[in-house]
Amino acid sequence: MSEEGQEGIPTPDASATAAPRRSRVDRRRFLEAAGASGVGLTMGTMLGGPALGVAQAGASSAPTTWDMTADVVVVGTGAAGFAAAATAHSKGNSVIMLEKGPIYGGTTAKSGGEYWIPNNSLLRAAGLTDPKVWALRYMARLAYPTLYNPNDAHLGLPPLEYSLIETFYDRGPEAIDYFEHIGAVHTQFNPDYPTIANYGGNPNKPTYKTNNPDYHAELAEDKRPQGRSLGPTATGGGGGAGLITQFYAWATAKKIPVLLEHAVTKVYRNTHGQVIGVAVNAKGKTLAVRARKAVVFGSGGFTANKEMARNFLRGPVFGGCGVPTNTGDIVPIASELGADFGNMNNAWWLQLPLEIAVTTVGSTADIWIPYGDSMIQVNKYGRRVVNEKAVYNERSQIHHVWDASRTEYPNLVLFMIYDDAVAKNPTQWAFRGVVPMPGNTAPYVIMGNTLDELARKVDARLASLASHTAGLKLDRDFTAQLRQTIMRYNSMAGTGVDTDFQRGSTPIQRDWGAGGRKGLKNPTMAPISGSGPYYCILVCGATLDTKGGPKINAKAQIIDPQAQPIPGLYGAGNCIASPAGQAYWSGGGTIGPAMVYGYLAGFHAAAEPVKDV
Amino acid sequence: MSEEGQEGIPTPDASATAAPRRSRVDRRRFLEAAGASGVGLTMGTMLGGPALGVAQAGASSAPTTWDMTADVVVVGTGAAGFAAAATAHSKGNSVIMLEKGPIYGGTTAKSGGEYWIPNNSLLRAAGLTDPKVWALRYMARLAYPTLYNPNDAHLGLPPLEYSLIETFYDRGPEAIDYFEHIGAVHTQFNPDYPTIANYGGNPNKPTYKTNNPDYHAELAEDKRPQGRSLGPTATGGGGGAGLITQFYAWATAKKIPVLLEHAVTKVYRNTHGQVIGVAVNAKGKTLAVRARKAVVFGSGGFTANKEMARNFLRGPVFGGCGVPTNTGDIVPIASELGADFGNMNNAWWLQLPLEIAVTTVGSTADIWIPYGDSMIQVNKYGRRVVNEKAVYNERSQIHHVWDASRTEYPNLVLFMIYDDAVAKNPTQWAFRGVVPMPGNTAPYVIMGNTLDELARKVDARLASLASHTAGLKLDRDFTAQLRQTIMRYNSMAGTGVDTDFQRGSTPIQRDWGAGGRKGLKNPTMAPISGSGPYYCILVCGATLDTKGGPKINAKAQIIDPQAQPIPGLYGAGNCIASPAGQAYWSGGGTIGPAMVYGYLAGFHAAAEPVKDV
Repeated sequence: MSEEGQEGIPTPDASATAAPRRSRVDRRRFLEAAGASGVGLTMGTMLGGPALGVAQAGASSAPTTWDMTADVVVVGTGAAGFAAAATAHSKGNSVIMLEKGPIYGGTTAKSGGEYWIPNNSLLRAAGLTDPKVWALRYMARLAYPTLYNPNDAHLGLPPLEYSLIETFYDRGPEAIDYFEHIGAVHTQFNPDYPTIANYGGNPNKPTYKTNNPDYHAELAEDKRPQGRSLGPTATGGGGGAGLITQFYAWATAKKIPVLLEHAVTKVYRNTHGQVIGVAVNAKGKTLAVRARKAVVFGSGGFTANKEMARNFLRGPVFGGCGVPTNTGDIVPIASELGADFGNMNNAWWLQLPLEIAVTTVGSTADIWIPYGDSMIQVNKYGRRVVNEKAVYNERSQIHHVWDASRTEYPNLVLFMIYDDAVAKNPTQWAFRGVVPMPGNTAPYVIMGNTLDELARKVDARLASLASHTAGLKLDRDFTAQLRQTIMRYNSMAGTGVDTDFQRGSTPIQRDWGAGGRKGLKNPTMAPISGSGPYYCILVCGATLDTKGGPKINAKAQIIDPQAQPIPGLYGAGNCIASPAGQAYWSGGGTIGPAMVYGYLAGFHAAAEPVKDV
Repeated sequence: MSEEGQEGIPTPDASATAAPRRSRVDRRRFLEAAGASGVGLTMGTMLGGPALGVAQAGASSAPTTWDMTADVVVVGTGAAGFAAAATAHSKGNSVIMLEKGPIYGGTTAKSGGEYWIPNNSLLRAAGLTDPKVWALRYMARLAYPTLYNPNDAHLGLPPLEYSLIETFYDRGPEAIDYFEHIGAVHTQFNPDYPTIANYGGNPNKPTYKTNNPDYHAELAEDKRPQGRSLGPTATGGGGGAGLITQFYAWATAKKIPVLLEHAVTKVYRNTHGQVIGVAVNAKGKTLAVRARKAVVFGSGGFTANKEMARNFLRGPVFGGCGVPTNTGDIVPIASELGADFGNMNNAWWLQLPLEIAVTTVGSTADIWIPYGDSMIQVNKYGRRVVNEKAVYNERSQIHHVWDASRTEYPNLVLFMIYDDAVAKNPTQWAFRGVVPMPGNTAPYVIMGNTLDELARKVDARLASLASHTAGLKLDRDFTAQLRQTIMRYNSMAGTGVDTDFQRGSTPIQRDWGAGGRKGLKNPTMAPISGSGPYYCILVCGATLDTKGGPKINAKAQIIDPQAQPIPGLYGAGNCIASPAGQAYWSGGGTIGPAMVYGYLAGFHAAAEPVKDV
């Protein structure tokens, strides 16, 4: 234990050490929640100091006593938070991690666990290259499509936005290698899913076995369409849960306290405006946690805050798969500190079954790419409005369209309709998603023996959901138009070319969006049967999580409108204005920047001076 | 002058009176800017106190001396600001108005000057009724289309949102009558524009001569489709400039200082958290202005702040017609005070000619309803995508649509194409807008003798604008598709029924969107000629102004996330989260709520206690 001082274990303030103790029950639960042993914290400190009454104080009023102290205080325990904590700790700093929820891992733990890192060392070890100009053009083209200019030195982007993607490229490989080096996370090419599409022998789209293609490998800007999506090794179980398990095991071994049900409610600053700690609501008790060097927010977005979603996002959503604690807590906290905000209109867009979205906060019934070859999505008028096999982030924005003549969101709910061939297909497809396997049922699947019967049942189901949808009904010509739509779709399925929406036109669509019968001209398209039964799932707009919040600079410092850092305050992950802008570059386009900017936050926080209280 | 004390003229603090004087030049310019005589302000006060160094202080740090003092300090001089100032002053309070720009009037002065007031007294005097349930259903249906439930006690709206439209209904008529009563603004039914459509003899759409129909008179919820749009009398010249002229004349008569080029940079609070004044940048000098009772923000949105527009609005915009000073200054100011924010994704949407939008901040070349019967708008693929005659707020949202397959905004720029019959039509149509009269030209009008030539010239023009549009080009099949589009459009013009987009289907579309030749089955649709010349205007998404910001309650108090008022702080107009949500109810749907909530802000501010410094 003697080296713990060097290891950077949290050290209590003398004043807090003298604080009265809480009950034994509190103490035991606290230790459980902390996960680690809590060594280095005196009991008095751990169990809370005297009531501080800080809730009434302004953001800049520091408490007179502290319940806990660490060099770096990390808020949130997803990929961003753990990346920051591991980095700061490995550089000799004491760290405390504060998690609002009852379990650690945040939305990362519910995810596929990929992280997308251009020019990563595994890619290079495989003999591939990923020059800066390739990666930055691809990123800028998708992140800022109305600004992108390949001939401009900053690709048409404002300086801050450019610096964030440039630094992501420059430091991303280093971050992943660093986690490997310290033993926090072991990385491999993310294992691919059951099928790999044949990219038609296109020499520009090689099929070397690394991992899935970029989500927009079809773009001329994507000159490295495979090799950027990484993931954790099987240690820890793989996937997002495995990624968190690896991080958590490392943090536990290093005795970093991971304190559950500790919600940060405020940031304290000293009279110089430097951040010196946070106020925490720990199961109803207010604690003051001192950060000697810095506070890093690696918390979630505001998916679970319906009010914020309505007031900020581009269009109507009904929920999302972020953890229920993602209620945008950082927004009022950082507002009071004078932070600038960005990307508040964007999210990682997704579709969910409507009935799940309105009943379950944080569902993972995500419709990544809707399953089925003889399947279409139509709106209330019975019309196709989107490429059903387009990647979730792009496809799901069709729910946001406003109809100027009818003053309505015509695609508020889409109707995913498929025939018995899809329902009875026994393929154990990784992206089968919400379509039950043959012999199984799901309450959100509506069945009708004819299209007319299906429509009647859909209308009845809609009636039961009227309070969620402003009374949405099918148009009275729905079935007639649906027949027209199917006729046209079937014709295009016969040729294999979707002239309306380019279904199945890109590598990822064929890689993830197939899984139907063999021998189709377009593996994502088969004609819909002329006879029933037919099936329908009501589908709505949703998010994985939002990706707007306080802006950061290339050091992951949270900045004000004059681009000046708020001293001692860092951010990464879904709580901040994402360096990805409106893009979802590929699988891991979420966690990649979260890990890299989490790393940078920990890196720079470790070098901060100790602040006066 | 002896009654000025009772009239509530600003009174200087003794400390400020002793402040050193500025130069004579400053003094004269100050007096000119103030507009009114400035009586009641000592020179020392008016010309600024000692340098306060307040720029470095936190929001809650009060200055030790004040340069000016009034009971109520009003920020902004549009309809909201003047409404608040007139109301507070008429109730016995001293008022100072602070205007960031070099002229007073804000965006109101550039507008049509209508104000939409349900159940107003003019309407009732004309023998009409407008029961609460009628007006609230219409407002809620459009403001919150995904929440609206006619059977719910709050129409499906959250409590705050419901209270804001309810109070707008309850207090709106009183506000307008009050301005009449005190002589600040004289109101009439807004004079109608050149033509009144024939509503087909529908008894539910009577054609009594009051003013233009509601923008959505077609909705079943609109049971009072005319009579709610008011405007100023001809005193002052009519329109928005006339409205401001009336207000300003009244303020001048009452000796309310209207201080130009006085930009508020900060709000001061006392140790109780009450608002006690503002910091002002007056042409480079920092002044501290004390508000004994309250500060009312009646300032603009963030249209002129491209960075905020990109980070908050629903979709890409290129500019807007709000005054250039509308840079969202309230957002950081209110953030630091802990305000909650709402409606940040919405604006009063508009189309502008692209070339004007990218060169002129605050242009008024608004395309209210595009002129021309043989005219269509198509996207880069040569396809119609919207009802060209839909009201600007609804139509302009088509620019925001994201294409999932092509990862682009396909409607980022639309191409307004018309034939020689439109160009040569001599009608002096009030909504002719950007289409020059015969014999006139405009640099943004592109002409080609054939569609092929037109397309070539459009592409050349687009090339010159590439840095603004991420290199937008016409699709290579543009002209071929355009011919198909024209063929289909012409066929529908022949029947008079636009089965694709319902063009000309509502009263306002026929009232404002006609002006072409006589005898058409649909007055908004005529076939496009088979021979040239043809004309094209590049059209982009824009705003009148944004309408998100700090949330207010039904007293116009700015509130925090717990719905608690920030004591002494009020807001109205485009700077706050609009009570209109995403709706543009009708002409004056902008200024109506601005005047009513400005009135309520002044009304409640007048009743505030005097705050300790």
